[in-house]
Amino acid sequence: MPLKNKKAGNFTEWYLELVESAELMDYSPIQGCMTIRPRAYAVWEAYQALLNAKMNADAVSNAYFPMFIPESFLTKEAAHFEGFAPEVAWVTQGGNEELAEKLAVRPTSETIMYHHFAKWIHSWRDLPLKVNQWCNVIRWDTKTLKPFLRTREFLWQEGHTAHATEKDADEMTLRALHWYRDLCENYLALPVLMGRKSESEKFPGALYTTTIEALMPDGKALQCGTSHQLGQNFAKMFEVKFKDQNEGQTYAWQTSWGTSTRLLGALFMTHSDDKGLVLPPRIAPLHVVIVPIAKEQADRDMVMGAAKRVRDALSEAKLSVHVDDRSERSPGYKFNEWELKGIPVRIEIGMRDLAEQAVTVVRRDSGAKESLPESQLALKVPAMLEDIQKSLLDKATAFLKANLRPASNLTDLTKTLEDGKGFVFSPWCGDPRCEEAIKEETGATIRLIPFEDAPNGGCVMCGKASQRTAFFARSY
Amino acid sequence: MPLKNKKAGNFTEWYLELVESAELMDYSPIQGCMTIRPRAYAVWEAYQALLNAKMNADAVSNAYFPMFIPESFLTKEAAHFEGFAPEVAWVTQGGNEELAEKLAVRPTSETIMYHHFAKWIHSWRDLPLKVNQWCNVIRWDTKTLKPFLRTREFLWQEGHTAHATEKDADEMTLRALHWYRDLCENYLALPVLMGRKSESEKFPGALYTTTIEALMPDGKALQCGTSHQLGQNFAKMFEVKFKDQNEGQTYAWQTSWGTSTRLLGALFMTHSDDKGLVLPPRIAPLHVVIVPIAKEQADRDMVMGAAKRVRDALSEAKLSVHVDDRSERSPGYKFNEWELKGIPVRIEIGMRDLAEQAVTVVRRDSGAKESLPESQLALKVPAMLEDIQKSLLDKATAFLKANLRPASNLTDLTKTLEDGKGFVFSPWCGDPRCEEAIKEETGATIRLIPFEDAPNGGCVMCGKASQRTAFFARSY
Repeated sequence: MPLKNKKAGNFTEWYLELVESAELMDYSPIQGCMTIRPRAYAVWEAYQALLNAKMNADAVSNAYFPMFIPESFLTKEAAHFEGFAPEVAWVTQGGNEELAEKLAVRPTSETIMYHHFAKWIHSWRDLPLKVNQWCNVIRWDTKTLKPFLRTREFLWQEGHTAHATEKDADEMTLRALHWYRDLCENYLALPVLMGRKSESEKFPGALYTTTIEALMPDGKALQCGTSHQLGQNFAKMFEVKFKDQNEGQTYAWQTSWGTSTRLLGALFMTHSDDKGLVLPPRIAPLHVVIVPIAKEQADRDMVMGAAKRVRDALSEAKLSVHVDDRSERSPGYKFNEWELKGIPVRIEIGMRDLAEQAVTVVRRDSGAKESLPESQLALKVPAMLEDIQKSLLDKATAFLKANLRPASNLTDLTKTLEDGKGFVFSPWCGDPRCEEAIKEETGATIRLIPFEDAPNGGCVMCGKASQRTAFFARSY
Repeated sequence: MPLKNKKAGNFTEWYLELVESAELMDYSPIQGCMTIRPRAYAVWEAYQALLNAKMNADAVSNAYFPMFIPESFLTKEAAHFEGFAPEVAWVTQGGNEELAEKLAVRPTSETIMYHHFAKWIHSWRDLPLKVNQWCNVIRWDTKTLKPFLRTREFLWQEGHTAHATEKDADEMTLRALHWYRDLCENYLALPVLMGRKSESEKFPGALYTTTIEALMPDGKALQCGTSHQLGQNFAKMFEVKFKDQNEGQTYAWQTSWGTSTRLLGALFMTHSDDKGLVLPPRIAPLHVVIVPIAKEQADRDMVMGAAKRVRDALSEAKLSVHVDDRSERSPGYKFNEWELKGIPVRIEIGMRDLAEQAVTVVRRDSGAKESLPESQLALKVPAMLEDIQKSLLDKATAFLKANLRPASNLTDLTKTLEDGKGFVFSPWCGDPRCEEAIKEETGATIRLIPFEDAPNGGCVMCGKASQRTAFFARSY
């Protein structure tokens, strides 16, 4: 039962079929809200554990803040309110009573958190304050909705920090961004570009926004995580200030940064194929599935014995292993099912294998099949998993590199965007009017401006001397 | 800085001061919604890890379902709707548009989950289906609100299962209840009573509800977790049915069960004292704090060296250890602060200690202080932590036992409730009118009916022959 749709043929239908058939999600009765099924949620939990470890090592503490935010809080920072108001879901009724003030279901938590920060921060001794929250957020989006990539409710983490100096906040902003890049590249096998957002694309209320952007197989860019230097904007609105070492009052410098279940969509979309889900082993909840094959009832005990032996040996090697001992399903059915569900390695054990004291090992990514002596599995399977991990990253990196192309004027930019996939980079003068004109002309936005940049010629739009390179792409 | 209020004196004020001063929570601008600060959230994470391990071993998978539930879903099961409607927060507006159908912010997720269950369950092969969700829920409660114990938003887990037979669902209901009891007693050191709820106290829509109930120091009962056998009620409303092995169509038998951040309130309230928080070591995020004491600057290096040595030795022994090396705070300030924040064991290291190759070890629960040779710490400190754990449970168990008293008629019941704390047990005929009359007369409700029960005399209210014992108490 391979998928009906082909990744190379009808990509959108293929993705929608994939996430539903592989039991990653299900549609909810409310448009734009979805259910995250156990197989996808387990990947999210694996991501949580990895990011928690990084945050913990940096003394970022998890906490939980109320989901409801009074309208008066949201309106305090004008740009912030303007940015989020069109997408807020409002609670107006509690039980049978109309509420006196309507409550926003959080689209993000700066305002409610900084109200608390102001109460908790008094002196330089209280800084830095670093808090993270794993929660659900609502953005009543009217753009095209797509499972995981754009949903009205999603799960995310939002890290929020307060610092004594601008430099400390700058460093925190970049540190969080580097965590995200490391997790994307080295665990999700998603290579990303890193840089700043333009003024028009930055977080509403931030001083500047940094971003990591990945490239999806259909050629669209996907923002995978952002980290914002908030400056003292919110601190001034919410009175987040502290007594410094000279007894003067100073406003704190703040950052916020987030990643969401959108990452799961990027992950599923990037690596999967026409047979179903492909997961990089380092983020896969289950590494190995063992399918015992006994045509005769008499062989069953021996085959099952071997399956359990192999399971124990691999568990000992810290792998997560499942023995599929269902008697009501054929081996062929099981192969298809576990391919659809993206288990990185399948081990088949039949009487012929046992006769040779070997088992058949099949890689999910390439489909390559080999016979391996049972005694070598505890060494070879972990190495194979690492090889799958590397191979998925290499493939995605090659795709990203092949789809980074330059353009020097608007005609060239338009044509390059039309002709192929991915990012097109060009000099840009920095004027938002040029940015807007390009967006109208091509449908592409500035995804990022790389951190390492240099004067590089005339603006792709207006021709003026430019201090920066902009990476343009159509995006999710 | 011990607390201003005394636990034995003004209990309610003491509790409110405790949770705020020990930085466990903070009040939100929205009445009844609170912020869970990192010190309390870390305890919740420890609880999550423990329950996840139990669920995982029983093949219960975590997932995530939408927070918004259409009004039409909630109304499908009549008793369920009637039970929850008065406490529902409603979203009526998305962005700038009025919604066509108002959306409930989940007070519990039976309806939305079983809509999905109906799509996922086709055959007996799909059963049992066991899913759990960690999430926030809203109950727009109008009763007296209290941090952790009763808040309008709280965090919880809700397990939901579907089974082929009534017996399987009965067993699941009890299995979950036993997980809760084990975690309460053996980790949170909260002894509980276990039993069934009366018909009037059961979950709206359930066949029957089982419960664990703890006793708070002020004598009020606290429901710590419930597990419901839902029968086929919801299955019939949401068409959760399956083809059985004889090809017949049968409705599934379902259960749901939950515990919430309310447990944290029970935990904090039960063990803490006039100096602040006391935490059982098995649930404490931090086991040991080390306070280096160097009066002279010249001694500092030696004392800090010893502190790090001790930290490494205890970390090696799997303990979580913090060295408080702040130079701007005095040892006395630090002692008070860590007592307030409930670190189970404090280790003081000064020059006098070092001269004897020893350190001073102080138990948070009893305040007992002893000098221990540095070489023995990796053995003695873990043993001391286990002793603290046992001692907290023993104390709470003695308190619960001392406050379980019998009564045989209404006068006796009223008087016994008035005279002391805790539970009063009496024969009860089972008639809800007797239950209601007792509630009106005494303010006490039936907290549970024990599982092991026998005919035991005349109903405490009406005198009729009774088949069951009811445990009455005033409760949170």
